[in-house]
Amino acid sequence: MSVVSTTRIHLLLMDLKSLIRDVPDFPKPGIVFRDITTLLRDPDGLKHAIDSFTQKFFHAGINADYIVGMESRGFIFGPPLAYQMGAGFIPVRKPGKLPSAVYCIEYELEYGTDCLEIHQDALHPGSKVLIVDDLIATGGTANATARLVKKSGCDVVGFGFIIELQNFQGRKNLPNVPIITLVEYL
Amino acid sequence: MSVVSTTRIHLLLMDLKSLIRDVPDFPKPGIVFRDITTLLRDPDGLKHAIDSFTQKFFHAGINADYIVGMESRGFIFGPPLAYQMGAGFIPVRKPGKLPSAVYCIEYELEYGTDCLEIHQDALHPGSKVLIVDDLIATGGTANATARLVKKSGCDVVGFGFIIELQNFQGRKNLPNVPIITLVEYL
Repeated sequence: MSVVSTTRIHLLLMDLKSLIRDVPDFPKPGIVFRDITTLLRDPDGLKHAIDSFTQKFFHAGINADYIVGMESRGFIFGPPLAYQMGAGFIPVRKPGKLPSAVYCIEYELEYGTDCLEIHQDALHPGSKVLIVDDLIATGGTANATARLVKKSGCDVVGFGFIIELQNFQGRKNLPNVPIITLVEYL
Repeated sequence: MSVVSTTRIHLLLMDLKSLIRDVPDFPKPGIVFRDITTLLRDPDGLKHAIDSFTQKFFHAGINADYIVGMESRGFIFGPPLAYQMGAGFIPVRKPGKLPSAVYCIEYELEYGTDCLEIHQDALHPGSKVLIVDDLIATGGTANATARLVKKSGCDVVGFGFIIELQNFQGRKNLPNVPIITLVEYL
């Protein structure tokens, strides 16, 4: 049996959802928070999440020069994926955290607006970029990040999220490229 | 030539410091900020940093059950190292971010105090823990994190920092275990 098929069986057998903890009433009453820290603390769970992304992007024909991850939980999954795919990692951060010249994009929150930043010279123009975060709900953060990538003169070739909250229909807010998710909730 | 010796030559030949950018007057006038985003965006630089840590911990005889990383830049280096070492990753966060029951440790800043948190059930008691961050200056954050690990009933077996600012003598603030750094500045 080849290494690839052994890995595929490993991927099929593992249930990532069972490693995600439901925390009721966080951050406010009535909300069930999907807690990925219980997945991260499990060495097999962490490895499985990263290997699943790598394989799924490979099978979707996606090859990226850069992985972009958003502060703070996108920082957790972006770098190991970049390492495995032989890409660079670019952080997108909240205002005032990046030290050099930045592009800034405003995006809407439930109440008011917020801003995300990327270093102006982070992405080499014309590069292929993959955007990675822990979770997609409305897609507001991912959409803002995609606009930062476009402003940098690059193409978003795909998105990767550990968790998709499907009722929020965040996919509708994203460009028409492959979107890989590992665990889905209604 | 074996794979191991080829890797060692690769590690010896690469100059990580040349990939770190100096940004003057950030976050305030007179401070030179050591910017690691220019290292992260370089696929070879990112790979080299993670592989160097893995090798140096291996040669120091350090084997960890968990890698603990501090918000936000510790989130960047902890997970790929955990992946490579077959360990779990545990985030230490600023107050109010972790959804379940936490231990909290106060530590001193230049003016006033701040607090760091870890999930009470994150670390299995008796485990061996490696603490990883991008930079050590005074060692205040790393010391607070070590106290959180101890409060969880575990042993800190080592520390890893990409950058050491030696003039701040942060090592004096840490427990007597191996401390691996990749790039040093006075």
